[in-house]
Amino acid sequence: AYIIPSNDPHQSEYVADYWNGREWISGFTGSAGTVVITQDHAGLWTDSRYFIQGEEELADSEMVLHRLTPDRSPLHIEWLKENLSENAVVGMDGQCCSVAMRNGLEKALGNRQLYLEDDLLELVWEDRPALPRAPIFEHDVKYAGQSRLQKLDAIREQMANKNATHHLIVALDDIAWTFNIRGRDVDCNPVAYAYALVEEKQATLFINTEKVPAELKQQLEADHIFIKNYSETKSTLHNLPKGSAILLSTSETSCDVMSAISPHCATINGQSIAMRLKAVKNPTEIAHIRGTMVKDGVALLKLYRWLEEEVQKRGVKETEVAEKLAGFRAEQPHYFGESFPAIVGWKGNGAIVHYHAEEATCATIEGDGILLLDSGGQYHDGTTDTTRTTVFGTPTPEQKRDYTMVLKGNIGLSMLQFPAGTRGNQMEILARQHLWQHGLNYGHGTGHGVGFFLNVHEGPQSLGPGATARAAESVELGMLTSNEPGFYKTDEYGIRIENLILTIEKEETDFGKFYGFETMTLFPIDTNLIQVDLLTMTERSWLNDYHSKVLDRLEPQLNEAEYAWLEEKCKAI
Amino acid sequence: AYIIPSNDPHQSEYVADYWNGREWISGFTGSAGTVVITQDHAGLWTDSRYFIQGEEELADSEMVLHRLTPDRSPLHIEWLKENLSENAVVGMDGQCCSVAMRNGLEKALGNRQLYLEDDLLELVWEDRPALPRAPIFEHDVKYAGQSRLQKLDAIREQMANKNATHHLIVALDDIAWTFNIRGRDVDCNPVAYAYALVEEKQATLFINTEKVPAELKQQLEADHIFIKNYSETKSTLHNLPKGSAILLSTSETSCDVMSAISPHCATINGQSIAMRLKAVKNPTEIAHIRGTMVKDGVALLKLYRWLEEEVQKRGVKETEVAEKLAGFRAEQPHYFGESFPAIVGWKGNGAIVHYHAEEATCATIEGDGILLLDSGGQYHDGTTDTTRTTVFGTPTPEQKRDYTMVLKGNIGLSMLQFPAGTRGNQMEILARQHLWQHGLNYGHGTGHGVGFFLNVHEGPQSLGPGATARAAESVELGMLTSNEPGFYKTDEYGIRIENLILTIEKEETDFGKFYGFETMTLFPIDTNLIQVDLLTMTERSWLNDYHSKVLDRLEPQLNEAEYAWLEEKCKAI
Repeated sequence: AYIIPSNDPHQSEYVADYWNGREWISGFTGSAGTVVITQDHAGLWTDSRYFIQGEEELADSEMVLHRLTPDRSPLHIEWLKENLSENAVVGMDGQCCSVAMRNGLEKALGNRQLYLEDDLLELVWEDRPALPRAPIFEHDVKYAGQSRLQKLDAIREQMANKNATHHLIVALDDIAWTFNIRGRDVDCNPVAYAYALVEEKQATLFINTEKVPAELKQQLEADHIFIKNYSETKSTLHNLPKGSAILLSTSETSCDVMSAISPHCATINGQSIAMRLKAVKNPTEIAHIRGTMVKDGVALLKLYRWLEEEVQKRGVKETEVAEKLAGFRAEQPHYFGESFPAIVGWKGNGAIVHYHAEEATCATIEGDGILLLDSGGQYHDGTTDTTRTTVFGTPTPEQKRDYTMVLKGNIGLSMLQFPAGTRGNQMEILARQHLWQHGLNYGHGTGHGVGFFLNVHEGPQSLGPGATARAAESVELGMLTSNEPGFYKTDEYGIRIENLILTIEKEETDFGKFYGFETMTLFPIDTNLIQVDLLTMTERSWLNDYHSKVLDRLEPQLNEAEYAWLEEKCKAI
Repeated sequence: AYIIPSNDPHQSEYVADYWNGREWISGFTGSAGTVVITQDHAGLWTDSRYFIQGEEELADSEMVLHRLTPDRSPLHIEWLKENLSENAVVGMDGQCCSVAMRNGLEKALGNRQLYLEDDLLELVWEDRPALPRAPIFEHDVKYAGQSRLQKLDAIREQMANKNATHHLIVALDDIAWTFNIRGRDVDCNPVAYAYALVEEKQATLFINTEKVPAELKQQLEADHIFIKNYSETKSTLHNLPKGSAILLSTSETSCDVMSAISPHCATINGQSIAMRLKAVKNPTEIAHIRGTMVKDGVALLKLYRWLEEEVQKRGVKETEVAEKLAGFRAEQPHYFGESFPAIVGWKGNGAIVHYHAEEATCATIEGDGILLLDSGGQYHDGTTDTTRTTVFGTPTPEQKRDYTMVLKGNIGLSMLQFPAGTRGNQMEILARQHLWQHGLNYGHGTGHGVGFFLNVHEGPQSLGPGATARAAESVELGMLTSNEPGFYKTDEYGIRIENLILTIEKEETDFGKFYGFETMTLFPIDTNLIQVDLLTMTERSWLNDYHSKVLDRLEPQLNEAEYAWLEEKCKAI
């Protein structure tokens, strides 16, 4: 059997085309899935978000769709266990197989041999895309708020606590954050393929050297950060001085890289230090985020005004909405690109959580219905991620009830005050309890960390119902997290209300420090879909206060007509 | 070093006097604590519930109080690690050291030797109490709802799934539940010291044979349950047929017992099957619990009426309240005893979570103030555990605010509807969020499982904020759990409102099965302490509905004056 996963050597969620062999070989374009090929079977394992898409995209092929259970356990491994003979050999590209993944495979496969030495795709994928070659660029300290030396100092302090002489950074966003660099290697994720090795007095950035502009190279060297070729990562690790102690995360580091480390060195398994530091936004970043939210709100306002006018005259395709919105965002200063492909779901399409409209097949917005729009921008001064659900025409009582329950969940989390140390999976119920009361629920998590001009999904925190490692992390001061409860009625409509919320200090009492959330996203929440008598007075006050804030903050950027439009949308209920 | 823990060979929370060497050697009477003795140090490690009590009780001794951090990690092991030389020997009675405990100790102590062969207390504790000898008695199937054979069948079915030929049951309440027997070996816990070994066709109960009445012995034998002496447990385990596979819990089984198992047998580590079966109350038990709650409510009514009249005339000691209440409970049919020593805390004493009033030193209830009363009864037809907080005179605005926040938490949990599979640590925030909003909190968990004429604390479920194993268990249909948020203002007052709640089915929708809670406890919640405008309409309705139910259910058992009293307390707000 040969396993082809969705990830790259850095365990990225989104990868460069070069690493997207799983899509190439299966034709399945979803973001998550694993292919397993044997002499007489070819299968794709994916989760419930992609069942419909998987069925459609695999329809005319020999590849069989295997449906993952809601806990997304690696069932392809179970399948291998049951279907392979005892003397079978299981292969996978050791570049894409993390050490933790290998340990799991070895445990499950028992006596069967695991072979990680070859990338078989290289032998059969004739028109494989090239590795990305776009230059990296500096992420200005005026945005970053901290110089790369300050960041390295903070990392080195924690390395010393762990008695690590070296720290191997594997995740692309952690590397970008640490060195204040950005790249264009992965769509929507402003990162570049690289490894980094931090030592007490210097650091090494392993990257295609042609991607590093001369001036940036000089600046990095001035900070004792030296550039080596990406391909030199393994030889450098192999030749580290005897007795080196290398801190690395075995769930991120590939077997290929791990195998290069000399037995004369020790490895210390631990979370990437940069991941935790990066998650806590500094005051400069926070100030920029506030400004970026104004820009993003203005772009959304222009989009919705345009759309409202346009649908009076003609049907508008879902794909047109996405393009137009990207255009309005691009008018804003320091815009870089989308933070993910916008999800524009009219009526039943809104109920497909990871829907991606295609021009040839997408729906046309016309008449009465509900539109779900989930989109975000990458700006040099921040990353956004906003979902609004809007009604055209008159909503049904059921639609209003469902929407109001989602809204109550969103407000419940927004208003929460909680002691330091509270975890994501403790507070997440506040987003769900009102839906539950009506026998309703949604199948995705409620919140993820959001980068600063970086990946729209980042750790360590997560607002999730499960006992996953991320949901068991505490939600710390300065973390930026999405708050996005939803509800999906198959073939009819999708509802999601998503704001980004920043953890802020509220008070310190005899019972310790208490934190709360500041809602950063600035765009009105459709009040036409609210069944007002289902809101408590406190919830109504929250919403009215929020709308006052949206109006105040956006006002300076609006012309008279735009302001009048927004004033109407922000009217107190 | 020699370690003296609080537990017995069955890892019981409450133990017979014979096993209470920790109290004997330290003088510390709290329910949780560990003593460590070395040549030049004697220390007691306990948690924050007992800091004040520990200080007082150790005041005139050489024993040093070591304070545990809120996560209650076994810091005495850390202390041993830091203070003992590399060639030190650490001793502990292997009867009281579970296999899991030993593994933890071994890991922490490194090369130091662990010696578990001797009970040193036996050499120095001259007036050690005898092992309890009270006879066991049958728990009638009319209360239990299931015969012991039905229970054994259910256990055997799960044993077969795990390929276990034998199942060793260690926990005393699991044994009592399985065989429908009860005992008097531990105060307030109607259990008897025993082991049980379940096989496919028979079972063995290891117990002091003198404790088993002849008639009960015959009945057990008719069900292929054979009695052996407690002391024969080890030899029987040692002589099991080669190839036996024994299911046992290493966190309950002692090293002493474990060491008896022959290397020709396999052990399978797993939770006690009876623990999970026992937690889910059957329809007969549930019907009895409803009736028992009426009896318990009547006893509480008589107590509070008596107290209200008495304090008009004179001061009443806290201890007198506890005695009087036990007396009123004893008037009820099928009463067996207290389910735990009642906590009667007047004013500041109410703020000491595990307060135990002593006649010589306790407070006298007189004038204005708040009384916290946490008590419960063991009846042959159920176990109760109720806390009410009552004001005498006029409460302050702060007292009303605090009480109302606790009440909102209690109601929030009571009203929750949740999908099957929801865990205790997901829902627990509903009990705390309103206090948090005011910068307040409480230091204990929110709920524990409650036995049926068994221990007032039982697993597997728990409503707790932490990531503990119990709080990570789902709250299943038929489980009986306490709902007891609180607030404690040191030296001033304690507030706790505790009801027992039963998990019931609410509805099944496209999103699966939804459960909810039925509040089983039947006694009014003091409305004089409520700041009504802080309740939502839904919360007020819940409270008024609850009070109607209390009035309806108790009415048949009350005389005219009692009914009038209750009607006043249950008046709608």
